[in-house]
Amino acid sequence: MTGPAFDDPAQVTFEKIQNAARLIKGAVLETPCLPAPRLSQLTGADVYVKYENMQVTGAFKERGALVKLSSLTEAEQARGVIAVSAGNHAQGVAYHAGRLGIPATIVMPVLTPFVKIAATRDYGAEVVLAGNTLAEAKEEADRLAAEKNLVWVHPYDDPHVIHGQGTIAIEMLAQQPDLEVLVVPIGGGGLISGIATAAKALKPSIEVIGVETTLYPGMWGAFYGKEVVCEGATIAEGIAVRDIGRLTTAVVRERVDDILLVSETDIERAINAYLTMLRTIAEGAGAAGLAALLSEPERFQAKRVGLVLCGGNIDPRLLSKIVVRELARDGRLVSIRIDTPDRPGVLGEIATVIGDMQGNVVDVEHHRLFLNVPAKGATLDVTFEAFDRPHGERIVSALRERGFVVRYLEIGERMD
Amino acid sequence: MTGPAFDDPAQVTFEKIQNAARLIKGAVLETPCLPAPRLSQLTGADVYVKYENMQVTGAFKERGALVKLSSLTEAEQARGVIAVSAGNHAQGVAYHAGRLGIPATIVMPVLTPFVKIAATRDYGAEVVLAGNTLAEAKEEADRLAAEKNLVWVHPYDDPHVIHGQGTIAIEMLAQQPDLEVLVVPIGGGGLISGIATAAKALKPSIEVIGVETTLYPGMWGAFYGKEVVCEGATIAEGIAVRDIGRLTTAVVRERVDDILLVSETDIERAINAYLTMLRTIAEGAGAAGLAALLSEPERFQAKRVGLVLCGGNIDPRLLSKIVVRELARDGRLVSIRIDTPDRPGVLGEIATVIGDMQGNVVDVEHHRLFLNVPAKGATLDVTFEAFDRPHGERIVSALRERGFVVRYLEIGERMD
Repeated sequence: MTGPAFDDPAQVTFEKIQNAARLIKGAVLETPCLPAPRLSQLTGADVYVKYENMQVTGAFKERGALVKLSSLTEAEQARGVIAVSAGNHAQGVAYHAGRLGIPATIVMPVLTPFVKIAATRDYGAEVVLAGNTLAEAKEEADRLAAEKNLVWVHPYDDPHVIHGQGTIAIEMLAQQPDLEVLVVPIGGGGLISGIATAAKALKPSIEVIGVETTLYPGMWGAFYGKEVVCEGATIAEGIAVRDIGRLTTAVVRERVDDILLVSETDIERAINAYLTMLRTIAEGAGAAGLAALLSEPERFQAKRVGLVLCGGNIDPRLLSKIVVRELARDGRLVSIRIDTPDRPGVLGEIATVIGDMQGNVVDVEHHRLFLNVPAKGATLDVTFEAFDRPHGERIVSALRERGFVVRYLEIGERMD
Repeated sequence: MTGPAFDDPAQVTFEKIQNAARLIKGAVLETPCLPAPRLSQLTGADVYVKYENMQVTGAFKERGALVKLSSLTEAEQARGVIAVSAGNHAQGVAYHAGRLGIPATIVMPVLTPFVKIAATRDYGAEVVLAGNTLAEAKEEADRLAAEKNLVWVHPYDDPHVIHGQGTIAIEMLAQQPDLEVLVVPIGGGGLISGIATAAKALKPSIEVIGVETTLYPGMWGAFYGKEVVCEGATIAEGIAVRDIGRLTTAVVRERVDDILLVSETDIERAINAYLTMLRTIAEGAGAAGLAALLSEPERFQAKRVGLVLCGGNIDPRLLSKIVVRELARDGRLVSIRIDTPDRPGVLGEIATVIGDMQGNVVDVEHHRLFLNVPAKGATLDVTFEAFDRPHGERIVSALRERGFVVRYLEIGERMD
């Protein structure tokens, strides 16, 4: 008996995605897909958001994990499963394995953030910390899988997993049948492989566009036949994948229309827009679709676009840094450095000028130790809120007119 | 012709709420009402959340505002409307007046945060800044209303507004018919008046419970016939109302089952739970319902409880402070002060002890200027992440065993 080649896209079918949709009903949330008028105003497209960050574990990964777990024989379920992940896949497998009473071992790199380890343990999985990278963790997982005869749950390169992720498209087109374009983040390619398969079957005219970060353009390289380098620290670690799937690559080549690359800055802007305009939390990977709209708005102009907000697991302190950086980029939070004579009353004078013009001082730092400061002088870093950029500039002009030497500090240049 | 007395609860009827529901359909979002398993695990109740923070303006206020605006004659609409608000009511009125082409004047106290002024202006309203308090802003609004013959849009003490807010209950019981208890924040009382009227008409067995902060227990005082004091700085400024409504008080007395009071700490915990477990943003008032479940869990045990997450407009920087405080309360973020001899290598020694035990140092401050520090010594404030409280305590013990004098810093005691 010869099965299909591992990377034959014919293995991934709409019929199996429909079966997966029936299977997960009631166990995985049918998340809302709602119009987002404020994002429409921001981008010029007619934007709809599929809130996969509202899943129990905060990400879509539950769908594929549950379909895979359900496909196992009783004997396999009794032996248990193993997965390597520092992120959403870990929690998706742990949660549904826990629900179904299947023993799950999750191998994570030793430097995985505490909160992710704790969440995975809380769902009932055994967490093994091994290696400094995912590749090293994978080595330990290979050893454990062989030793204990565990079943692998791959995060993307598995037809069952892809069929599970594809259920998102069935829901989206039932909830918003008029969608014309779906914009889908790509890590290993499981999500977009499932979505493209189901969406094109349901509505052949629909466009399916993938998004990767410029730092990890693996699927883009495969799609366009270019050599690429995948490296660097990205805010979208959920799609920072070096080894894209073989099966997913075949499916993407056959069924996806295009792949766009987005910058870190666009991803930050998108996270901020979700937070401040939609009051919802997107992790970097989850915001990649919106980042594509911000980066190439003309391409999506006036089209009905469905964004898959695929995950919301981001460190809240990172989130707050992003918000502050966006305020600074918009000119609504202004940081300046003022060289002052070190005498009483100077701070009061500066604060009064800013306050009288309705600037709102939020932070002051006073330094006397810098080597470039005259021994009798000091520098003062002042951060204040302004209505907008021109308002902030008027305040700075007023300070200069009073004789102060003022320069703008760049984002990240302040001492903190 | 004599109409009903202003405070006759018979003016507020289920039939009119049904009419309001038809009226707002398509113009106000039918927000999701979804199970929240992680909140169920946290509280012991069976929790469902109505996401009113997903409205365009981030709060339920749009419903009542639209119903009121639609009730005006053409002549009144042409003259325009006026409202006093520093918060969600301002945006709700401004947004729907803008949509309908009705001129809107919103009077806000002069110290209203920039972001709220800007949002209200962006929806097309004329914003007038006047007075230091809402009461003083109201005086200016009275003057403007008389001068320009504008129609008042009251935030809660108006039957049209109440009917609009009541549409939430119709949606909730259609989305989750098995709910047994609704928990509803109370500011002036408009939201709960509408919800109680509709919910009891649809399902007489349902319990409707209001929530106020202990700092502003106005409706609780009216309900139980007690003298109360309303004052203080609360994180739930959306329900910090001194002058509760006359009509709403009459409706609440007749149709609401109980009112609970919650502390600032419970509200902070609830905001944090929404953020970290549901990846959604609740402002203080929006989180009050969950705060009640956290504060009196036994009362809601195993019941199917619907929480109205009524608003999500909170300063993101405040949000990040709350998250950090919660980590500290849980013992997962530990701040300690160490008196050290001021010699090279001490910081390295301390950081090594913490790191070897898998604590993660996130902040260090070094002080030599405190008056209580010996002239040759220094204090070091170190903040590190721990897995949990016992882990943090083991690290502190290890430092003490090395001879360091260590004490825990309370939340807020650090220099920043």
